[in-house]
Order: sequence, then structure tokens, then C-alpha cells
Amino acid sequence: MILTVTLNTALDITYRVRSLRPHTSHRVGEVTERPGGKGLNVARVLAALGHEVTVTGFTGGDTGRTVQDRLTAVPGLVDALVPVSGPTRRTIAIMDERSGDTTQINEPGPTVTPAEWSAFQEAYEDLVPSVSAVALCGSLPPGVPVGAYAGLIRTAKAAGVPVLLDTSGEALRRGVAARPDILKPNTDELAELTGSHEPLRATQDARRRGALAVVASLGKEGLLATTPEGRWRATPPTAVHGNPTGAGDSVVAGLLSALAEQLPWPDRLSRAVALSAATVLSPAAGEFDRDTYEEWVPRVAVTREVSAA
Amino acid sequence: MILTVTLNTALDITYRVRSLRPHTSHRVGEVTERPGGKGLNVARVLAALGHEVTVTGFTGGDTGRTVQDRLTAVPGLVDALVPVSGPTRRTIAIMDERSGDTTQINEPGPTVTPAEWSAFQEAYEDLVPSVSAVALCGSLPPGVPVGAYAGLIRTAKAAGVPVLLDTSGEALRRGVAARPDILKPNTDELAELTGSHEPLRATQDARRRGALAVVASLGKEGLLATTPEGRWRATPPTAVHGNPTGAGDSVVAGLLSALAEQLPWPDRLSRAVALSAATVLSPAAGEFDRDTYEEWVPRVAVTREVSAA
Repeated sequence: MILTVTLNTALDITYRVRSLRPHTSHRVGEVTERPGGKGLNVARVLAALGHEVTVTGFTGGDTGRTVQDRLTAVPGLVDALVPVSGPTRRTIAIMDERSGDTTQINEPGPTVTPAEWSAFQEAYEDLVPSVSAVALCGSLPPGVPVGAYAGLIRTAKAAGVPVLLDTSGEALRRGVAARPDILKPNTDELAELTGSHEPLRATQDARRRGALAVVASLGKEGLLATTPEGRWRATPPTAVHGNPTGAGDSVVAGLLSALAEQLPWPDRLSRAVALSAATVLSPAAGEFDRDTYEEWVPRVAVTREVSAA
Repeated sequence: MILTVTLNTALDITYRVRSLRPHTSHRVGEVTERPGGKGLNVARVLAALGHEVTVTGFTGGDTGRTVQDRLTAVPGLVDALVPVSGPTRRTIAIMDERSGDTTQINEPGPTVTPAEWSAFQEAYEDLVPSVSAVALCGSLPPGVPVGAYAGLIRTAKAAGVPVLLDTSGEALRRGVAARPDILKPNTDELAELTGSHEPLRATQDARRRGALAVVASLGKEGLLATTPEGRWRATPPTAVHGNPTGAGDSVVAGLLSALAEQLPWPDRLSRAVALSAATVLSPAAGEFDRDTYEEWVPRVAVTREVSAA
């Protein structure tokens, strides 16, 4: 069982319009709704790979109920979300059919009270000892202390469970100091954390700040991993073009999936790169193309870097 | 008791953004949600005026549950919405704080099945005999026959209950032929129905098509009423500037409120104009300023027109 934590879960709503014209009225024909927030996306990919996954975080209001109804329908996924009085946020994506571009409106999320935050921590402490890995994903809703991830990392480490952190800004800065087993930043998050736009230097700096291993996603160039066992670059066999939504969450799912199976780093990285590419190539945002994934896993180039930085 | 019918109820969601920039991401600080659809807006104004109101129409899904929770909180308002399997639609208004303009995204609404439409008609037939007036408001959701309002008008008339129709397009064209007691079009709807952009000629034409009385809302110029008892123009004491959202619904509420109190036409019109102006002047969209309303009722100029068209 893998545990993913999504403190700011969301109901992701997508509208397709012919062309978004500000200050006019648009009728949409089709409405797509699905559970959102990075940790829920990671869980859905893990479940599709055949893993048993428990999701926790917060849920509230009618939007939270919709999210939970959809999660319950996913085989292999266990809902352990903790109720809050405020409603789960919505994210609105308005897809412009003419340009293919998306305009995004994100609600802030419910304000979590100290009592609700305590209730979550207790639930998390009960869940952690029985899982093989934990992923802490995404932004913090209002009311949750900015050092939240640091505490959750310490709880997992005290229980001897490996923990991956995928967040940004101050939550990342505070979280990394608690020594997560894996940090999964993209290049922007890594630069914000370390001040360096040079990935090799930045991943090494992130390790010095506390992360045991750092897997940086470099977009089309794949992954750069700096770990206690060595340094690797993993690149897709060909450049992929498509919708990058969810590609980062698929990297996390690939890393966790291989970690849960106790595979070595090169196998973890090839799985993560193949899954990410299969997500970019899928027509539906955040889904992955299974055939592409299976075909690409053995074709990902993983090269060990031996040069000193 | 007044009955308002909203076949395509909505959850109206308003987001405020500094400036809407297509193809970028926006975080919103504040989210406003309220029950929507013309008939629900009319009911809320009637309840605020002290009337007892029953609302019917369709409700479904988690959005419908949110709408019903909010309606239940309004004193004097009775929820008689009929359940459908599809979810109540959302309307998204994105308010640009810099320009004050609004970008609107409207979902289509649930597809109503023949069985659900039959269930509604039965519920409506049970409600109508015990009310003093009926208002049929807004667009039809997918699946409801385009002649729906004609049937509902005949049911009300058979029960001897006066019925007001406020809709547009083909639903209006088909509805007017069933001889509603009051038709409340705006100038665009009236022109679409009659082909004439000259309000006096158009209201007379609308009466020939079946409406017993026609009250056309002419925006800032107030109302033009063509009725069996005569023709009147009602104009606000001064031009009003503000947010016109809900002004038409306030006209309907004013007409129904005075009709339920069996007031003559000039009193109905002054109430409708004052309420509409008090809605435009209110800072919150769709709310009305009670002081303005009470102060303006006696100041609305209602003049009888005696000239032949």
C-alpha cells in the first residue's frame, strides 16, 4: 500500500469553448469534472499501474463529496480523506479550441482550522506505519502551517517509511530541511529553492539542504537524479509533444511505483520517464497511454554521470 | 403563496480577478456562490418583500444540493424542486476588477428525461391550485420539449391562476400562443418575437400573438405596458447607473408582488420600476437596496398613453 497526501484537493473542471473572448458570454457544450490536486493525480496513476493506494488530505462541502464519489469508483484506491467544514476548492480550466491554450482559474481552498489540522495529523500517524511509501504533494490550503510538510516527513521517517516531497515555494523550503528521501522539483521550483538555474549544481545544493535524493524534472530533457548511490540522467527515446498536464505527477507515480517494488534507481527513472512521456502523449489531460508506457520503459536512456560538479 | 418555475436552475459562481488574461493562470481570493436561474432570483426578491414563495423546477447532483441548501436558508421560501439524475448547471462569472467587466461561462444544464419531465408536470399540477400567481422564467434545459411553457400556461389558466412568462427564443414564441396573462420581454426578446424594434408596435403585436398583457423592459427608460385595461409608460425619477444583473428579475418580482396584492396596473408598474432601479443601484449583483426601493415607489412616473399606434 502506497499513501499519497493531498492537503489541497480539488475538483478540476474543464470547459471547452470555441474561443475565449473576455467580457462576453460563452455557452459550453461539454463539461469534464475530475478529482484534482497532485496527490490524487499520483494516486490515480498508481492505481492504474496495479498498486493499492490510500489517499488522504482534506475534503469538504459538495465539491468534496463529488471528489470522493469519483475516487470511490477507482479500483484499488482507498479514500482516507479527512473532513473539513469549508468546501474543497474548484479549479476551472477553459480550453480554447481554436488555439489549444488553456485559461486557468484556481480557487484558494478551504481555510483549515487548528482542530482540523490536528485531526489530519492523527489520521496520518495512524496510516503511515502500514504503508510502503508516502508522497506529500502540492500546495497547502489556507490555515495549514507553512512547516506542515516538515512535520509529516518526520512522522514518516520515524516510522521507517520512505517519503517523497513534491511542492513549491516556502512549503518546499521548509520541507526539505526535514530530510525527505526523495525531492521531486521541476526546474523552476529547484531554482526558487537554490537560486541556481544550473540543474546539476541545483540538485546538489538541494541535497545539501536536506534531501537524501533529488529527482529534477527537466521537461522534454527528462530527469536528472542526484542520489546517495550516484547521479543519473534519464531521457525519453524521442522528444514528445502534447499536453504536459499531469506529466510531473506521473514522474512521482513512476518513482513511487518502482520504489515500492524495491527497484534500483535506473529502473525507477526509466519507469518515471516512460510514464511521463505516455502522459504527455495521451489525448486526455492527466491520463497516460498504457501502450506507449509499456513500449517505452525499456527504451528510456539512463546514463550514469561520473563527472564532479 | 406565489409559485416561480425555474426549469434550468443554476449555481451562480462569481470569481474576482485583478485582470482576466487568456491563456494564463489566475488565483482567486474570494468565491461567491448563490442559487441562480431567473425564477430563483425572482423568488428571492419576492421573499425579501415579505411574500411567501414556492420555487419549483429541477435540481440534481452536488451543485443542486448546494442550491437547495442556500434556498432553505431564505425565510418565506419553500423548496419544491423536483430531482433529476443530471447535475444542476453552474454559471461562472469572472469579474475583471480593473475594467469592471464580466466574462461569463454557462454550462448547458442536465438532460431531462421524459420520465423526469412527467414527474415535474405532475408536481406542478399539484402546486398550481393553491397559489395566487405563477411565474415561468428562463431557458429550458436539454430534453425539455420546446413547447413546455405552453403546457404549463394552460395548466395555470385551467386552474384560474394568473401566469407570467419571462423567457426568450423559441420557448417564448411557443409560450405566447398559450395566452399567458403577462409577458415580460426585454427589447431584444420582443424584437426577436415580433420582428419589430419599435416597442409600442412590438408590444401590440405580442398581444395579437396571444399575451393578454405585455410589459416590455426598455432598460434605462423603464417599462412600457400594453394591457386590456390600457397602455402605460413607467419611468424612474432619474437615470440609474450600476450593475444591471437581476434588474429584469426584479421587474418580474415587482409585477407579481403587486398582482398578488390585487393592485391596479399603475401600482404594479411603479413597484416594478422602483425595484428594478434599486437592484441596479445595489452594490451586490441581483440584490436590491431596500431604502432606494421604498423611497422610489411613489416617485416613479406612470403615464397613460392614449394615442393610437
